[in-house]
Amino acid sequence: MDKDNLSVVVHSKGELRLEQRPIPEPGPNGICAHVAERPHWGFVLKQPMVLGHEASGRVVKVGSAVTHLKAGDRVAVEPGVPREVDEFFKSGHYNLSPSIFFCATPPDDGTLCRYYKHNANFCYKLPDNLTYEEGALIEPLSVGIHACRRAGVTLGSSVFVCGAGPIGLVSLLAAKAMGASQVIISDLYSDRLAKAKEMGADFLLHVKIEDEPKEMAKKVEGMLGCMPQISIECTGVQSSIQTAIYAARSGGVVVLVGLGAEMTTVSLLNAAVREVDIRGVFRYCNIWPVAISMLASKKVNVKPLVTHRFPLEQAMQASEMSRQRLGVKVILKCDKNDQNP
Amino acid sequence: MDKDNLSVVVHSKGELRLEQRPIPEPGPNGICAHVAERPHWGFVLKQPMVLGHEASGRVVKVGSAVTHLKAGDRVAVEPGVPREVDEFFKSGHYNLSPSIFFCATPPDDGTLCRYYKHNANFCYKLPDNLTYEEGALIEPLSVGIHACRRAGVTLGSSVFVCGAGPIGLVSLLAAKAMGASQVIISDLYSDRLAKAKEMGADFLLHVKIEDEPKEMAKKVEGMLGCMPQISIECTGVQSSIQTAIYAARSGGVVVLVGLGAEMTTVSLLNAAVREVDIRGVFRYCNIWPVAISMLASKKVNVKPLVTHRFPLEQAMQASEMSRQRLGVKVILKCDKNDQNP
Amino acid sequence: MDKDNLSVVVHSKGELRLEQRPIPEPGPNGICAHVAERPHWGFVLKQPMVLGHEASGRVVKVGSAVTHLKAGDRVAVEPGVPREVDEFFKSGHYNLSPSIFFCATPPDDGTLCRYYKHNANFCYKLPDNLTYEEGALIEPLSVGIHACRRAGVTLGSSVFVCGAGPIGLVSLLAAKAMGASQVIISDLYSDRLAKAKEMGADFLLHVKIEDEPKEMAKKVEGMLGCMPQISIECTGVQSSIQTAIYAARSGGVVVLVGLGAEMTTVSLLNAAVREVDIRGVFRYCNIWPVAISMLASKKVNVKPLVTHRFPLEQAMQASEMSRQRLGVKVILKCDKNDQNP
Amino acid sequence: MDKDNLSVVVHSKGELRLEQRPIPEPGPNGICAHVAERPHWGFVLKQPMVLGHEASGRVVKVGSAVTHLKAGDRVAVEPGVPREVDEFFKSGHYNLSPSIFFCATPPDDGTLCRYYKHNANFCYKLPDNLTYEEGALIEPLSVGIHACRRAGVTLGSSVFVCGAGPIGLVSLLAAKAMGASQVIISDLYSDRLAKAKEMGADFLLHVKIEDEPKEMAKKVEGMLGCMPQISIECTGVQSSIQTAIYAARSGGVVVLVGLGAEMTTVSLLNAAVREVDIRGVFRYCNIWPVAISMLASKKVNVKPLVTHRFPLEQAMQASEMSRQRLGVKVILKCDKNDQNP
Repeated sequence: MDKDNLSVVVHSKGELRLEQRPIPEPGPNGICAHVAERPHWGFVLKQPMVLGHEASGRVVKVGSAVTHLKAGDRVAVEPGVPREVDEFFKSGHYNLSPSIFFCATPPDDGTLCRYYKHNANFCYKLPDNLTYEEGALIEPLSVGIHACRRAGVTLGSSVFVCGAGPIGLVSLLAAKAMGASQVIISDLYSDRLAKAKEMGADFLLHVKIEDEPKEMAKKVEGMLGCMPQISIECTGVQSSIQTAIYAARSGGVVVLVGLGAEMTTVSLLNAAVREVDIRGVFRYCNIWPVAISMLASKKVNVKPLVTHRFPLEQAMQASEMSRQRLGVKVILKCDKNDQNP
Repeated sequence: MDKDNLSVVVHSKGELRLEQRPIPEPGPNGICAHVAERPHWGFVLKQPMVLGHEASGRVVKVGSAVTHLKAGDRVAVEPGVPREVDEFFKSGHYNLSPSIFFCATPPDDGTLCRYYKHNANFCYKLPDNLTYEEGALIEPLSVGIHACRRAGVTLGSSVFVCGAGPIGLVSLLAAKAMGASQVIISDLYSDRLAKAKEMGADFLLHVKIEDEPKEMAKKVEGMLGCMPQISIECTGVQSSIQTAIYAARSGGVVVLVGLGAEMTTVSLLNAAVREVDIRGVFRYCNIWPVAISMLASKKVNVKPLVTHRFPLEQAMQASEMSRQRLGVKVILKCDKNDQNP
Repeated sequence: MDKDNLSVVVHSKGELRLEQRPIPEPGPNGICAHVAERPHWGFVLKQPMVLGHEASGRVVKVGSAVTHLKAGDRVAVEPGVPREVDEFFKSGHYNLSPSIFFCATPPDDGTLCRYYKHNANFCYKLPDNLTYEEGALIEPLSVGIHACRRAGVTLGSSVFVCGAGPIGLVSLLAAKAMGASQVIISDLYSDRLAKAKEMGADFLLHVKIEDEPKEMAKKVEGMLGCMPQISIECTGVQSSIQTAIYAARSGGVVVLVGLGAEMTTVSLLNAAVREVDIRGVFRYCNIWPVAISMLASKKVNVKPLVTHRFPLEQAMQASEMSRQRLGVKVILKCDKNDQNP
Repeated sequence: MDKDNLSVVVHSKGELRLEQRPIPEPGPNGICAHVAERPHWGFVLKQPMVLGHEASGRVVKVGSAVTHLKAGDRVAVEPGVPREVDEFFKSGHYNLSPSIFFCATPPDDGTLCRYYKHNANFCYKLPDNLTYEEGALIEPLSVGIHACRRAGVTLGSSVFVCGAGPIGLVSLLAAKAMGASQVIISDLYSDRLAKAKEMGADFLLHVKIEDEPKEMAKKVEGMLGCMPQISIECTGVQSSIQTAIYAARSGGVVVLVGLGAEMTTVSLLNAAVREVDIRGVFRYCNIWPVAISMLASKKVNVKPLVTHRFPLEQAMQASEMSRQRLGVKVILKCDKNDQNP
């Protein structure tokens, strides 16, 4: 274990800096690990914070009470760790616990560094047949799985995914793996739809900003041959939320994954009198073991999500590329000695 | 069986007329019955239609295939009868079947007449210890029960009911009967809140039109000592829907019972990131047997809902009283020989 | 439409006869169709009954009220049709309705004939890319889907299927399609396990009659690397039910699909104190549309189940082959002009 | 805080002794409290263990990290505290965590002493209008609530409780509070049935050991006027489990609360083909806050369960009384200065 803990730190006004930080020491329930990482940019905050919440790594040291992991183990990191045993944690919804620790949510430091310390109960051993990159991509995949769970996707579901960005794509993957028979996905851009097609979408709906929500809903029904039971809205755009509501079959569900404006104007009336439930998602809980088993059994493939890779030292270039919306997922390789996919 | 089938018929522009209509003959699965009735006014429609969808009555004749009822039986009438065995009916959600028959929903005639014909499978025998009026009030009670079912009210739930009109009151009754430990109810009017108090509300919140939703939500939390898990919105007013969302605890539910404007502006973002589900209700299904058993066991008391009674012949006066919003429920007695409560 | 309605009729003591029966005429909600068929043998009954409950066919005539089907349509037949609108039908569990009509359950005639009449609401149009044989196999597939639904199979489930006969195989197919990451299947016979392997089983457990249930459960855990959340018991054998219980993880489910003796001795205590639910299945409900969409989207493949085909005229030979337990599913081709797979 | 920590300790072969033990010091998340207690007798174990798992008390000292409690607070004690953040705890089923700490389950010491130390997250503040005795009785009440939750008791449920001992009585209380319209309860002894009547049972069924399960099931149906949706079995006796299965309506539930022999012979076939689920319970989870709110709102009354009270010093006499099955619940008052009900 050398003394290099290069870290990607965001300062006020979103300015990024590569800095050396002390190598952390795990407490009794913690681990310390080398990480591969998918970064997320653009925070504006008061105090410097290490970025990163999509990570996997190799265990370097374990705390005295840790029994299920040991140095050398390869692990995926679940970034949210409840701090209190409150009603949400006790009832299985620890993601809703208001005092939760979450990587790279101010003021909690994230994972984009050479050595990172985390609660061992939220680190999951990677099987040998999974790469570190797949381990890091469990985080976005978990968003899709949680959305599909909240939606109640099951065998034979027909699903409308609004938006073919990274979250739309993982929702597509999860829906298919949970038994959806038909998934239709919409987007403004042809290249994103083409990626969705490559990743298993059954129908593609090219939308334009000026399209009428009710007409779009009709198109969805026309293409599927029926109204979808489930709409998964991944854009946060008001007109798209409207479309998601109009499109869903009576008794169905709209899941809101994309985050939009504080206030939204939609036809709650249309949803209410057709008993179409509107459900949000906040991150995820109880998903890592499921995601690992799906990836290990090769029923879900997240590899096509990765379009670029950089060593940690080139975090600035990676950030610039993300800012220009080139590619889907950019991986930063934080371990100098392991730059493999 | 005489030849008098006086009926309350609504004509274009909402004009009411008392008219004689032919006495109907039941088909093989039907019954024909005398009815007690709670009317609902104010339709505007093209063809005359008999009003009424909250009814009970005495069976006069049964169809050839009917075995569970016989002439003389006292029954409560479920006004919605699915016409097709479609996916909604097959899966237990017949209320969502688009081709459903529903009393006094144009063009289907309602129950406000001396002799009414209905599908026997949707007529339920009243136990001896229930009155016809209780039988007729099962309809509004069912709205409250369906709302509380959709909300998932259970033992120990804390519930916020927005609006203390008839639907708010039956939601209160249902929530209490399903084990809610605390119900807080809001309204603009003191006399409605007083009625709610009489019917079991634990806390009363007097609101004004200009009140800020976020402040109202804070008041609800303050009065209950915690955020309610469930908000049941019975007004359809935008600011009240907003309050219902802000008030609900993370992981909780807002049920929309009140029908408002076509488009509504609310903070879907606030609901989504706290995983507060927004669920509507459309009438009800599978509730009459439950409601009858609750009324028969005296665990729920709907009698305080009745504030006025008129013989069928005075339907115009009853209508006028309802229009002035005097009282809660007005009963029309359709059987000349039975004008008892 | 010729006058040939050759039918496979079972007489007392299980004696089979090929007989001509009158061609039925559909009532207002019925259809009449030519059928492909998977037979089930061995009834002992008092009155002759036509066999067959796994069928698909081509519509020849429709009743006056039928709008979703027309002559020439290819359909799959759901053999159970509720006769009464009772509490089970209304709440979406029509399979539990005690007065249900069911093909080839005495005294109701089945589908093994050239012309068969059925309620049109329980006939489902086959997409062009599905064969009649796939249509007929929806029936056994539905048993597997219903079992997996009752079990709550979902993304990442690990499932233990006891028995690799036809029902075990369709349970395997359904579990995989619903997102199970790992399925282990047991049987006494190697050839049946080999078939299961071919159809997607991840682990095979060769059992012997004298094996100890607790040891078998340990083996299951050893092979999976964890206890399965779900056991689907398809043999009805007492020792296998015991194994299914011991094997299931705390908080998990055992589904009983195989029918065994009237009384069974098992450790209910073991199941109870680990909150392992024991759930049965009775046929299925609300599955045909789901099964059709899964088959049409090629996410489920039932074709490997068919091992033999006979024309209707050779029903006796087919019966003899089934009796000797050769093959998995034997298809009888009832339409003289269509003997294709 | 004096130095007296009199404790009821069970030694090998079930021998009870009153002993002085050191007063415990709370760790950072713990509390130390004076307790009122309902004892359970009869362990046979290798090492001496303090008895008691139904407790409430007054906080004497809190750990450095505890913020929701302070010295002087009155609390109810949930006796099960998960030790590991495993899959069961994370998903809201911490009662199933195999490494859970549980009061008076060997080798974990229980609460029957003057000063007891517990994890503060599993201590719940008692409202002023609840007594210590009500606080201690939350533990048995929780068994009833958990059983009714597992059973899915809801508005209008008809429930058959087998056995009118303490667990049968709390199941009755919970079922009523969750909206059951009718509860029938069975027992061998008239005095226990009379107690059940006093506590709200609608129907009483006096059974004899030699009664035939199928006949008993018929009697239940006859008395209720329908088959109950739910049977809650609280005796563990084989014939009673059989009756519980035969009695439950198709699509219903049997909950096993009573613990019986290792192996049981019942008609799983009867349950399976009618889709009657068999579900066990293991203690409870996530119930204390609900129970407190129900008791505080006076919707549930556990006071009639208490039939005797003793000071801690007379633990031997209390034990003797319990052994003779006199009374329902015997309270030991552990605080010398507070012997109030």
